[in-house]
Amino acid sequence: MRNAEPPVERLIAEKAVSLRFEDLPENVVRLAKVAVTDTIGVGLAGTREPVARAAADLVTSTTEAPGSATVWATGSGSAPQGAAYANGVACHALDWDDYMHPMHGHCSAVLLPVCWALAESGDADGRRFLEAFVAGYEVNGMLGRVLATPHYEKGWHSTSTIGVIGAAAAAARMLGLTVDQTAHALGIAASHASGIRVNFGSMTKALHAGHAARQGVTAALLARRGVTASAEWLLGPNGYLATYGGQMTPAEAAESIRAHTFDTFVIEGPVGLVQKPYACCGSSHAAVEATIALVEEHDLTPERIDAIEVHVDPLLNKTLIHHDAANALEGRYCLEYTIAVAAVDRAGGAAQFSDESVGRPEVRALMPKVRRIADRRNGPEARFAAEVVIRSGGREYRRFQEHQPGHPSHPLTEAQRAAKFAAAVRPVLGDRADELRLRTADLEHVTAWRELADLILLPTAVPA
Amino acid sequence: MRNAEPPVERLIAEKAVSLRFEDLPENVVRLAKVAVTDTIGVGLAGTREPVARAAADLVTSTTEAPGSATVWATGSGSAPQGAAYANGVACHALDWDDYMHPMHGHCSAVLLPVCWALAESGDADGRRFLEAFVAGYEVNGMLGRVLATPHYEKGWHSTSTIGVIGAAAAAARMLGLTVDQTAHALGIAASHASGIRVNFGSMTKALHAGHAARQGVTAALLARRGVTASAEWLLGPNGYLATYGGQMTPAEAAESIRAHTFDTFVIEGPVGLVQKPYACCGSSHAAVEATIALVEEHDLTPERIDAIEVHVDPLLNKTLIHHDAANALEGRYCLEYTIAVAAVDRAGGAAQFSDESVGRPEVRALMPKVRRIADRRNGPEARFAAEVVIRSGGREYRRFQEHQPGHPSHPLTEAQRAAKFAAAVRPVLGDRADELRLRTADLEHVTAWRELADLILLPTAVPA
Repeated sequence: MRNAEPPVERLIAEKAVSLRFEDLPENVVRLAKVAVTDTIGVGLAGTREPVARAAADLVTSTTEAPGSATVWATGSGSAPQGAAYANGVACHALDWDDYMHPMHGHCSAVLLPVCWALAESGDADGRRFLEAFVAGYEVNGMLGRVLATPHYEKGWHSTSTIGVIGAAAAAARMLGLTVDQTAHALGIAASHASGIRVNFGSMTKALHAGHAARQGVTAALLARRGVTASAEWLLGPNGYLATYGGQMTPAEAAESIRAHTFDTFVIEGPVGLVQKPYACCGSSHAAVEATIALVEEHDLTPERIDAIEVHVDPLLNKTLIHHDAANALEGRYCLEYTIAVAAVDRAGGAAQFSDESVGRPEVRALMPKVRRIADRRNGPEARFAAEVVIRSGGREYRRFQEHQPGHPSHPLTEAQRAAKFAAAVRPVLGDRADELRLRTADLEHVTAWRELADLILLPTAVPA
Repeated sequence: MRNAEPPVERLIAEKAVSLRFEDLPENVVRLAKVAVTDTIGVGLAGTREPVARAAADLVTSTTEAPGSATVWATGSGSAPQGAAYANGVACHALDWDDYMHPMHGHCSAVLLPVCWALAESGDADGRRFLEAFVAGYEVNGMLGRVLATPHYEKGWHSTSTIGVIGAAAAAARMLGLTVDQTAHALGIAASHASGIRVNFGSMTKALHAGHAARQGVTAALLARRGVTASAEWLLGPNGYLATYGGQMTPAEAAESIRAHTFDTFVIEGPVGLVQKPYACCGSSHAAVEATIALVEEHDLTPERIDAIEVHVDPLLNKTLIHHDAANALEGRYCLEYTIAVAAVDRAGGAAQFSDESVGRPEVRALMPKVRRIADRRNGPEARFAAEVVIRSGGREYRRFQEHQPGHPSHPLTEAQRAAKFAAAVRPVLGDRADELRLRTADLEHVTAWRELADLILLPTAVPA
C-alpha cells in the first residue's frame, strides 16, 4: 500500500513546500496577521521576564554573528537559531500567547520566532513570511489531529513536541528548501521533540517554545547541508507516532494526513486560533471572564465578597497545578490567585501577573475565599467552560461562561486586540508600538524584513 | 513518604555534586581514562564524516566566541554548547564509540564533549574533568536501570534520551554548580530529552549524541542563570518516567536511586563499559569476531566461501535494519555487508566502513552468500552472542562467540586499544596522535586543559 503513493512523511513535506501566498484565502492571511501581531506583542512584553533574560543572555554572551537575526531582549545580532531560541522563550514567557486546540498547544510562539529570525537573516519579504508561518501552522494542525488529547495527557507539552515539526516546516519554507531537503528536515526535527508537562509552573515551560523554534531552524539548516533522516520518521517502526503516542493508529494517521489538503486551513477552523486576553493559563480564562463580569455588574468590591466558587473541567483543574502562588510564574497556574486578582483589579493583564502583584495584601486576603470544583458536566465539547458563583452579604451571584474569551466563537474585537498590544508593547517600545502594529497589519506588503526588524530594536539597544 | 527524606530528584543532584576525585577507586579512574581516550580517538576520526562536517559547519559558520571551546573538525573557537554539539556528533559519527548496557546507549560520546568543552572554556584540570565525567556516567547508569530495555524497545535512542541527563550532571559538576542549581539543571535537561530509533542508519543518529551534549551544557548554563524546573521532574505527574517509560514503577525507581551509592560504580560493573574494536553497530560485533577468527584459522579466501550463516538474537537482528547497504552509513547497520567485508579484509575498522569500501566488487559478490538467522537461544544474559557457520568446498566451519569483543568479560588489550587509537587518530593528527594518547593516559595530572586541547588542533587549523 505505502509503495503505491508517496509515503505520508513525504506528503507533509510536499504540502509545506507547495504552499503559495497567492493561493491563501483572504481570511487565512487576516488570521495569520492577527496571530503574528499578537505574538510579537506578547513576545516583546515577555523579553522582561527573568527566563527570557536568561535565555537571551545565554545566546548573546556566547554567540556573535553580526548582521543576522536580532535577539529582541538585548538587540544583539545572533545566528538565526539563537535568535529563534531567545525570542521563542520570550514569546511564551508570559503565557499570554495564542494557542490552537488541535495540537493542544501554543503554535505561534514557536513559529513566529522561526520565521522572524530567518526572514531577518535572509531579508525576506512579508509574503514569504506568511507562507512559511501558515505552512508551519498547518503542519502542526495535521500532526495535532493525529496525536491530540492522548498525547497531551501522556505528559507531553505539545507546544514543543508537535511545535518542533511545524517549526522545521516553516524554517524549510523560509529557506526555500527542496521537497527532499524538507522531508529530511522534518525527520531530523522528529528526533528533537521534547518538553514534559511536569515543568509547567516553572521557568522551563517557556524554554519549551524556544527550544522547538531553535530545533526547527537547526533541522532545516542541517538538511540544507545534506544531513539525512529516516523517510519513515512518522509512521515507521520506532518512529515519532510509536514513541510519542497519539489518538490514531498508523493507518488512521496516514489517512488523516492524506485528507489534509490546503483547501481548508486549521487556522480558520472552529478551534484553530485562540487568543488570550489574560496573561495566565488558558484553562482559567472563562472563569476570569465570568468573575470580572460579575464584580463589574454588581459592583462587588473585595470587602463585600464572602466566597467565590469556581466550577471547571477536571482536565483544566489538573493543568492549574498551583493552589498558593509564591510568584507570578506560579500565579499563572494558580486559579485561586487568578480569580482573586481578577476580582480585585477587574482585569487579568500583564500587570496582574507580576511578582509584586502576587504579594498584595488585598489579593492574598481574598485567595482563601476562592474554592475550585472540578466538574465534568460540560463534556469535552465545552471543556473550557466555567461557572463562577460569588457570595456577598447573603446573596449569590452566578455566571456560566461557555467559551473562553478569545475562542473563535467569541473572538477578541479589534479594539481588544489593539488594547492588548498597546498594554504589552508600549512599556517596552514606547510610541513605536503603534507604528509596529500598523506595519504588521499590512505584513504582506513589507518588501524587506529589515524595515520591520528595525522597529523592534529596543530603545536601549539602538546604536547611539 | 517522599517528604520524610529528600526527593530522589534531589538525591541525584546531591550525588553528582558530592563526587570527589580523591574518593574515586583507582580502577574507576583507570576505566574513565580508557573511555576518555577511546572517545577522543573515535571522535577525531569522526570529524571527517559528512554529518560531523555539517554539524561543525553549522556551529562555526554561525557562532563565534573567540578564546573558548574548540570545534575539533574546524579548529574554530565556539561557545561551549556549540563545541559540545559538533564534537558530540563527531564522537558518534562512526558508531565506533563505547557504550554501556544499563542505559542501552553510548555514554562517553555525550559526556566527553560536554566535559571537554567546559574544561577548555574554564581551563579546568584533569581531576575536575574526571570527576565530572564519572558523575555523568553514574547518573546515566542510575537512570539506565530505571528505564532499561522497555525504554529502548519503545523506540527511544537512550544515548540521547538518558544521555542528556548525565550530560547535565557532568556539566553542572564542571561548572561547580550548587545542589539547587544542579537539581534545576537536571529538570531542565529532562525537558530536552529526545532521539528516536527510526533514525538509525541515517545521519540523524549521530546528531542525537551531539544534541544530548549540547542540551546538557545548556541546561547547566541556564540553571546557573537562575532558570528553574520542577523539583519532581523524574517521578512527578507528567514527569520524565511517566512520559518516556521504563521498567520500574515510581516507587521502584525511587528505591533504585536511593540504593545507588558511590561505593560501587556502574563504569566498573559487569556491563558498564563496552569498547568497540569494530567501526560498526555493536550488535554485529560477536559475529564479526567469529567470522574473522574462522577465515584466519582456515585461510578461507573469499573465492573459497560458498555460504555464511549468522545466528544472532532477535533484538540485535532488528537493530541491524539494512540488508543491502548503499553507503557506509547503512553498512554499519547491515549485517550482510559487515560480515562480507570482515571475511574479505579480515578486519572491521574505519577502512572497512567508507563509501568506497561498500562499493567493492569482491565484497558485493560475497554479500548474497551471507544469511542471517534470528535466534533466541542465548537468552537475555548472552544477547550479544553470535554463531557463525561458513561453508566452503563441502566443509562446514562453525564458531560460537559468547561475548562481543570489548565486553568487560572479554576486554580489549592495551595493545588493541593503542592500535585502535592509532588507526583512528594518525590519519587526522599524524605523529601527534602518540603524544595525545600519552597525555590522556596521565589525565589526572593535566593541570591546565589548554595544554591538552592544543594537541588536538588539526594541522590545517594550527595558526601559520
